Order: sequence, then C-alpha cells, then structure tokens
Amino acid sequence: MKKNILSCALVFALLTNCTPSKEDNTHAQPDTPLKQEQAADPLSSWNEGATKKAIIDFVEKTTTEGSTDFVEVKNRIATFDNDGNLWSEQPLYFQLIFAMDRIKGMAEGHPEWKNEEPYKSILEGNVEKALAGGTKSILALVMASHAGMTTDEFNQEVNDWLATAKHPKTGKPFNEMIYQPMVELLDYLRANDYKTFIVSGGGVDFMRAWVEEAYGIPPHQVIGSSNKVKYEVSEDGTPTLIKQAELNFIDDKEGKPVGIHQYIGMRPVFASGNSDGDYQMLEYTMAGNGPRFGLLLHHTDSIREFAYDRESHIGQLNKGLDDAEKMGWTVIDMKKDWKKVYHFEK
Amino acid sequence: MKKNILSCALVFALLTNCTPSKEDNTHAQPDTPLKQEQAADPLSSWNEGATKKAIIDFVEKTTTEGSTDFVEVKNRIATFDNDGNLWSEQPLYFQLIFAMDRIKGMAEGHPEWKNEEPYKSILEGNVEKALAGGTKSILALVMASHAGMTTDEFNQEVNDWLATAKHPKTGKPFNEMIYQPMVELLDYLRANDYKTFIVSGGGVDFMRAWVEEAYGIPPHQVIGSSNKVKYEVSEDGTPTLIKQAELNFIDDKEGKPVGIHQYIGMRPVFASGNSDGDYQMLEYTMAGNGPRFGLLLHHTDSIREFAYDRESHIGQLNKGLDDAEKMGWTVIDMKKDWKKVYHFEK
Repeated sequence: MKKNILSCALVFALLTNCTPSKEDNTHAQPDTPLKQEQAADPLSSWNEGATKKAIIDFVEKTTTEGSTDFVEVKNRIATFDNDGNLWSEQPLYFQLIFAMDRIKGMAEGHPEWKNEEPYKSILEGNVEKALAGGTKSILALVMASHAGMTTDEFNQEVNDWLATAKHPKTGKPFNEMIYQPMVELLDYLRANDYKTFIVSGGGVDFMRAWVEEAYGIPPHQVIGSSNKVKYEVSEDGTPTLIKQAELNFIDDKEGKPVGIHQYIGMRPVFASGNSDGDYQMLEYTMAGNGPRFGLLLHHTDSIREFAYDRESHIGQLNKGLDDAEKMGWTVIDMKKDWKKVYHFEK
Repeated sequence: MKKNILSCALVFALLTNCTPSKEDNTHAQPDTPLKQEQAADPLSSWNEGATKKAIIDFVEKTTTEGSTDFVEVKNRIATFDNDGNLWSEQPLYFQLIFAMDRIKGMAEGHPEWKNEEPYKSILEGNVEKALAGGTKSILALVMASHAGMTTDEFNQEVNDWLATAKHPKTGKPFNEMIYQPMVELLDYLRANDYKTFIVSGGGVDFMRAWVEEAYGIPPHQVIGSSNKVKYEVSEDGTPTLIKQAELNFIDDKEGKPVGIHQYIGMRPVFASGNSDGDYQMLEYTMAGNGPRFGLLLHHTDSIREFAYDRESHIGQLNKGLDDAEKMGWTVIDMKKDWKKVYHFEK
C-alpha cells in the first residue's frame, strides 16, 4: 500500500492549529533520575540485544589501546543524520512545518500570495495542495520563508517558533521530539572521544538554532543544506549577513559524502542514518580502511512513534533495507531495540 | 615605489631549482627547551610591550568568571588567516609554488602545454610571464594542477611535495616556515578554552594536509577556498571523491564572514589576519556584542622575514593600516613585537 502523506489527517491538522496542550515546555534533557541510571549504563534506553551489543563492541574495540582495531582520537569522527534519525520527521519534516507557519505569519505583507501557489493553499490550510508541486513547491516555500533577513533574525525566528509550536501527535515542542536512545548514543560516543557531527539534508541555519542544547553538538559540527548568504555593511558601518533566495548546497544523497569532505575533511569512522538519503554517507564511511560502523534506524514502531519505510514520502528507506546486510550495516529495529523513544514517555 | 613580485629574483629562483640544502627536515615543533620556557610564559617568542599586553589582557578578562567581559566557553571562537599570518607567503603564496611544481611534474602527459599559457611559461621557468594574466592565469594554474584526482591522491601529492620542496630564502621545508609567535598564540588561546579556526583564502584541501601537525588545528576547523568535488562509485563498488575543475567557494574578503557563517555558524570573538583580504573578517568580528579582539600582522621585518604592506602584490595591507586605529584593531609590528619569527632561528 502506498502511504500518501498528503492525505494524512495529521498533516492537515498541523496547519489548522491542532495543538493539543499538554503539560510542560521544558527542553529535552533527561531528568535527574535518568541521568543517574545512565551512569551505570550509558545506553540505558536501549534494550539488550544484538544492536546494542554491536555498538558497544565497536566503541570498545576502537578505543582500547593495543587493540588491532584501535582508532586514534583524532580520527574518531561520527556523523549523524538528523530528521528521522535524531528527532522525528513525521508527519512532515519539522522544518517544513516551520516554513508554513512562517508563510502564514508573513502573509499580511504579501497580498499577492492569496493568488499564488504554493502560498495560496498554505494560507487556506490545504497542505495537500500546497505540496502537490513536489520539490519545486517545497523549495519555493523554504526560500520565501527563510530568505531576505539577517542570519541573526532567522535564528530568532526559529527560537520563537520552537517556544510556541507544538507537535500535532504529542503536543510537545518540536525540540522535545528527539530520540532519547540517540541522545545517549551521542553522549556515549563523546565520552569515548568521538567527535559527533550532524550531516543532514535539513537547513543548517535551522538546525544550529537549537541542536547544541538538544544534542550537545556545537554549531560548527552541524552540516546541512544551505542558501547563499551575502555580506553587507550598512551606511553606519554595521555589517550583517543576509540570507539569499539562492541555493548554496544540498546535503543529501551524493551530497552527504561531498559535504563531509568539504566541511569535515575526513572520512567518518561511524555513520548513522535512517533513509535512502543517507545511503551514500554510510557507503562512503564503510569503504574506509580499518574498522567502520554503519547504523541504520528502521522506523518500526507505530505506537510510540511512526512505522514507515519503503513507500514513505518522508524518510523513505528502501535500497538501504535491501543492501544493509551486504554492506555490513547494523539496523536498529525501533520497536524491538528501544526501551523508550522520547524522554517524556512514562 | 611599486614592488613588483614578478621581477623578484627570488620568485624566479623558485622555478629554477634554487633549493639550498640545509640541515634537517623535521617538522616545525618547538624543541624541548623551548617547551619548558613556554610553561613559564605562554607567549615567550613575543617581546614585552603593548601588543603582547593587549592580547593577554583580552584573554584574561574574557576567561575570568565574574568579569563583566567574561565570554562563555561555547562562544570562544578565534579565527586566523593562514598565508602571511600563520606562515610566510613570500616571495609567492606557497600553494602557487606547489601548483607550479605540479604543472612541471604533469607536463609529460600534457604535450599541449608547450604551446599554451600559463603552462608554457611555467615549463620554461618564466614565472613573470606565467602570472602576467593575473587572476585568470592563477586560477587556470590551480585548477589544472589540483583537479581530476581523488581527494586522497591530492592529499598525498601535498605531503610528497612538503617532504621535498624547500623555501628559496631559508632552504627549509615550507611547513617549517610557520611563525613561532603565532603557534604560541594558538596554543595560549586553546589553553584558555578558545576554539581555533583557520579562515583562509588558500585551498582548504591544500591546508588540511599539514595544518594539524603544524598548528594543532584539526581538519574540520579549517575553512578555505575550494573547488567542487564529485562523489563517484566505481564498478567494483569503491566510492571516491573526485576534485573538479570548478570553483565551489572563494574564502577571501567578503567571502570570509560568509565562510565563517556557513562553516562555523557563529561570530568569532577573536580574529587575526594580515592583509586587506582579512578586512571584512575583522570588521564582522568586531561588530559583535561584548568584548572582541581584532589582530593585524604588519610585515615590517625585512631581515628575519619580509617587509611589505601597501604596495605588495602578495598580502597587500593598505585599507587595513588606514583603518586599524578607528576600528580598534591591534597591529603587530613584526620587527618590534616578535622576539623570534621561526622556531629554527638561533
């Protein structure tokens, strides 16, 4: 059965103010009891099994001096996709929800949008129609909602949005929709002197606004898609960087190894993704000499999260599932391997 | 008087095998006695005076908790130009010397170069004529000598070159032509929890081959100009990244704040450069809120290094000298402020 996101009631709800109000607004940091639990088991939100064991075995053998698989600290580079890998991407990439909310907020200054797609449909709350133009519609949307302001202003816009917008299924702020087991994995790798990077198709400026607090990854270790920016100095001598409506880099599929080279300059030892957009990142990583680890998150949990793979329009995982075994990648079965998905679960 | 690099005998010598053989080939690490001296004074190669004092005062006030100028660790970003700022750039950018050496090494496979500029002049040893076409000639040269190979192969080429090529004035390997006071400044900043980045007009792949050993700066903290790279998978499944003869990014002048945004994602607190190509980086840095430090290296030492500024074709410093005081930048007078320039000086 083909799963069509555009007819999904949840998506529709997103743009019609379906924001169930639930308890708190705090950021996605584990609370104190969980932190204590982690001290004993750094991957306490992972169930015991082959996946957890494979991760721990790999980290131990690459960080034990004298091991034939020992990796020098300076080479311990780990890269992670973001959407659907560190946080949820359903029912729609969160950045796209942000973009649509921005369009609605900007509509007053753009009376022409009432008659121009995809804006018209967004303003009318018709997500299905708004996205019917595919990539072209989506790009128009992101460009219009992200360009023409300074980088500082954009950063503020993202933070303002995160402070108020809520996920339609959980009612949580979007930056709490991060996967607790992956936060633990990032911490565990860093505790073992791995440098953790995000390598995502998402917009780099959008991510940098919140990922340091969420994952402990500083801005300069976040690689993503980007528009061009322009340096301008005002008459009073104030310099600013203005976001342009022109693509700079698409950090997806073949773009991921390219981005890794241009921004990190080294081949990762450990790469983690969840969709066919991550295929080349894992392929490139595993082809290096010495020990390498490829990790693929399979979304199998329709109750706690969402279940989707080969036919999904968002985060499609098809070729990756076919080839994982042949390529030596470890596949996370979310339903089976994760004790909890979000930190706020009971 | 206009200083014309193209008539400089030294430049000519470069391409006619003027490689005075001097003692050792070791890398530019301070020897043990110097390291001990540094323990007492982290900037031991700097003479006492206003410049050294300004640097130390700034680092102390931004790292002392409770100080009104205290800067949180996560915001301690320091950016450094490379050519003429961390290592010498005279008599000609070292990367250009590498490119010309590469052209000579590749000539056998390119019989057409005998009749095509700028290759013809390089092969004939006529640097002046080779560079007469200005930027266009230089770009052609860099493209031809840097493209069409894998990123791993290029890395090897740079290392092979560094292992054999010698600077025409000192007879030292080029990666020993690094400024000892700046190596100390990088160490001093890192010891105070600053993250040090290179932000250079030079090629990023060229720099990443050697800067970690020279300056302790890892590849992912090196930002530079770049060509595009392409991801390719061979029939046997081996993925490679191939350097293309197409520009990706020019990290110079207005490009420096742009590169800082795209790669680091934060405004620096401390910026250090030596030419008008660094003007915008310092301007952008100083315009941030809170304490900021702009440092400009003025090449005033014709004996130990080279003396050049307003009229130089390489590393021209003109507007920067005019505006330094107004902009609140600290200017290093190399002759006066540096006790030694290179670690190998007696």
